[in-house]
Amino acid sequence: MNSLPDDPRHALMLLSSMVEPGDAELDDLLDDVGPLEAVERIWAGKVPERLERITSASVACTPDARERCEAIAAATESCGSRVVVPGDPDWPEQLRDLLMVCDATDPHLRPPRCLWVRGRGDLAALCRRSVAIVGARAASEYGQHVADDLAADLTEAGWTVVSGGAFGIDRAAHLGALARGGPTVAVLASGVEQPYPQANRSMFDLVVQKGLLVSEWPPGATPMRHRFLTRNRVIAALSAGTVVIEAGVRSGARNTARHAAELGRVLMFTPGPVTSSHSVGVHQLAREPCEARLVTRAEEVIEDITGIGGPMASAPPSPRRPFDRLTEIEARLVEALPRGYVVEEARLAAAAGVPVEAATETLRRLREAGWVELMEGRWRLARGTSG
Amino acid sequence: MNSLPDDPRHALMLLSSMVEPGDAELDDLLDDVGPLEAVERIWAGKVPERLERITSASVACTPDARERCEAIAAATESCGSRVVVPGDPDWPEQLRDLLMVCDATDPHLRPPRCLWVRGRGDLAALCRRSVAIVGARAASEYGQHVADDLAADLTEAGWTVVSGGAFGIDRAAHLGALARGGPTVAVLASGVEQPYPQANRSMFDLVVQKGLLVSEWPPGATPMRHRFLTRNRVIAALSAGTVVIEAGVRSGARNTARHAAELGRVLMFTPGPVTSSHSVGVHQLAREPCEARLVTRAEEVIEDITGIGGPMASAPPSPRRPFDRLTEIEARLVEALPRGYVVEEARLAAAAGVPVEAATETLRRLREAGWVELMEGRWRLARGTSG
Repeated sequence: MNSLPDDPRHALMLLSSMVEPGDAELDDLLDDVGPLEAVERIWAGKVPERLERITSASVACTPDARERCEAIAAATESCGSRVVVPGDPDWPEQLRDLLMVCDATDPHLRPPRCLWVRGRGDLAALCRRSVAIVGARAASEYGQHVADDLAADLTEAGWTVVSGGAFGIDRAAHLGALARGGPTVAVLASGVEQPYPQANRSMFDLVVQKGLLVSEWPPGATPMRHRFLTRNRVIAALSAGTVVIEAGVRSGARNTARHAAELGRVLMFTPGPVTSSHSVGVHQLAREPCEARLVTRAEEVIEDITGIGGPMASAPPSPRRPFDRLTEIEARLVEALPRGYVVEEARLAAAAGVPVEAATETLRRLREAGWVELMEGRWRLARGTSG
Repeated sequence: MNSLPDDPRHALMLLSSMVEPGDAELDDLLDDVGPLEAVERIWAGKVPERLERITSASVACTPDARERCEAIAAATESCGSRVVVPGDPDWPEQLRDLLMVCDATDPHLRPPRCLWVRGRGDLAALCRRSVAIVGARAASEYGQHVADDLAADLTEAGWTVVSGGAFGIDRAAHLGALARGGPTVAVLASGVEQPYPQANRSMFDLVVQKGLLVSEWPPGATPMRHRFLTRNRVIAALSAGTVVIEAGVRSGARNTARHAAELGRVLMFTPGPVTSSHSVGVHQLAREPCEARLVTRAEEVIEDITGIGGPMASAPPSPRRPFDRLTEIEARLVEALPRGYVVEEARLAAAAGVPVEAATETLRRLREAGWVELMEGRWRLARGTSG
C-alpha cells in the first residue's frame, strides 16, 4: 500500500486526473522537480497550501497511487487510446508557444502536461500543416456549407483540419475533411472514450478511423463548462492558423480566436450577410485590432498562412553557417522559434531566455545569415531551416 | 462676330463643353492664364498642338464664342440648374485634394473645372458631412436592402449620402436617404437636365426636390462610357468616406474605391455571403493593401470616419497660437489640409509645396501646438481648427 508510480508518464497521467490543466502551481512544481517527485510530494502533503487543498481529496481516496496509475493506463488502453507527453516524437512542439503567452493573469494558457490521443496517425505529423476551423454550434445552413467546403478544399490541398467536435461549424468542418478521405483532429473537453456531444457519435467514429481524437483529460473525464475554454487554447496552438466561421457575440469561437491572435497564429474569418445574427461575431472580429483576415476560400487561407505567393512559392534556401557554429544566444533563439509559426520579438526573447536588446541585435544577424525571416513585424524560421 | 466671353464663369462653362474634364494640358493653361485668356488663345489657335487638335472642330463651328456661352447659360438656367466654380462659397473645397493624387500617369484625377448643380441646397454644405455609398448595378436583393438601410440610418444621423444615380446599389442608397426625408447628392456622367438612366427618372425628381444632381458636363452632354470613370473621382473626393456594397470583380465601384483610398478617404465595405458572386469584389477589396474597413451598420461607418469614440466625442479645443502667428511653412501646411479629411504626410508636403523633411518636423511642431492631429499615421486638422 501507498506505493508511488515509477514511470514519469504514469505520474503525468495521474496528475492530469487530479488537477485541471493549466494550473500554474502544479506546472511550476513539475518544471522544478519532474513528475515522479511531484507525485511523491503531493502524497506526502509537502506542497504549497493551495495545491494541497486541491489534491487532498484525491490523495485521501487513493491510498495506492501506483495502483491508480495502472487503472488509468488500463482505461486508456481499453478504449484504444494512448498518451503523448512532451519529448515524445509525436508531441506537437508548437504547443510550447503557449509558454510565451501565459502569464500571472491567465495561467490557464500554459501548455498541456500530456495528451490522450485516440485514432490513427501521429499527432505531431498531422498538425505540422494544420488549420483550425471553429465557429458557432447554433450555425446557419450557410455557415455549415462554408465550413464543409473550406475543410474539404483544405484537406485536398494536404492540410489537416483541427476543430472541437461540437455541433454546427465544428461538425461541418470535420465532415468536410472526412468526405475527402482526409484525416482530421478533434480536440475534446472530455475523455477520448466518450467524445461529447454523443449525438456526433458516428462522426467521432469516422474521426477515429481517419484521424485523431485528442484530450488533456483522462478517460472518464466529463465535459465541464470551463473545460471547453481551457481546451480552446490547444486548438489555437496546434494549428498554424484559425478560421472563424460564424460566431455569436460571446461565443467560444471568439475565445479560440483570441488565443490564436495571442499566439501569433494567423487569424482569419469568413464573412456573412450583415443581416445574419450568426455572423455578428465574425464581423466584430474584423473590426477589432487583432488583424483578422477576411478569407472566402481555401486558397486564400493557405496564402495567408504560408505568406505571399502561396504554398507553391518556396524560396531557394540561402547558404548559411551550420547550426553548431551558431553562438549560444543565436542557437537559443533559433531553437525557440517553432517551425511554421511567426512569433513576436518580445515573446521570442522571453521564450529563449534572452534579453530583448540582445535578441533584437542577434535576430538581425540571424536574418542576414538566412536563419530567420521577418514577416509583418514578427519572426519565423526561414524556409528550409532544419535547426 | 467672333466675340469672346468676358465672364470667367462663362468661359469655364464653354471650355467644359469642349474639352473633357481632367485634361492636364487645358488645366495647366487655366492655371497659368485663367479662363478668359485660355478661351482667347484657343480661338486664336495659340495653344499646344494637341490641345488645338481637340478644340479646333468646336472653334470652327462656333464662330461667336460669347454667343455659345450665352446658349449654355440659357440651357443651364432653363433646366433649373446653376454652375459652381472654384472660389464660390458653395464650391466643395475638398475637391482640391485631387491635386494631391493626380500625376503624369493619371491626369484624369485632376479636380473638376466647374460643376453644374440642380436641386436644393448648397453643395459645399451638403458634402461637409457626407458618405459615398456605391456598388454594383446588378445588385442582389440583399445588397439593395443593405444599401437602403445604411443610407437611411446615415441620413438620420445627419450625414449626406452621395452616390452615382445608377441602378442597383446607387438607387437603393439614394432612396434610403430620401425615405428619411434627407438630402442626397447624385453625381452624374451626363448633363443634369437628362440624368441617366432614364428609368430612374422618378428618383431623380425626388433628388432634385430634396438634394442635388451634380455634373461636370453641361446640359446636353450624354453619358459616355469613359465619363462614368471620370465621374467616380468626384464621388470619392466629395465624401469623407466611401462604402462599397456589392461589387463585381471589375466594377466601377472598385474604381471609386481606389480613388477614395488614394485620396486618403476612409474606405469601407459591407461583407456578404462568400457564396454570392455579388460580393466577390468587396471581399477582394478586403484582402488588398488598401485598408478597407469592414462595416455592418451606420454607427460603424460614422465611427470609422470620425475616429475612435464616434461623432459625439469632441475633444476640447486646445489653446494655440492664432493662425497669423504661424510661420510661412506652418501656415502652408495647415492651409493644405482639407477640413475633415486625413492626408498622408508625403502628399500633404507636396500639396503645400514643402520639402518632406521640413514637413515632418513642422507637422510635429504643429501637432504639439494643437493645430493638427495624427490619425493612423496620417494627418488631419485638429477639431476646432478654423484656420
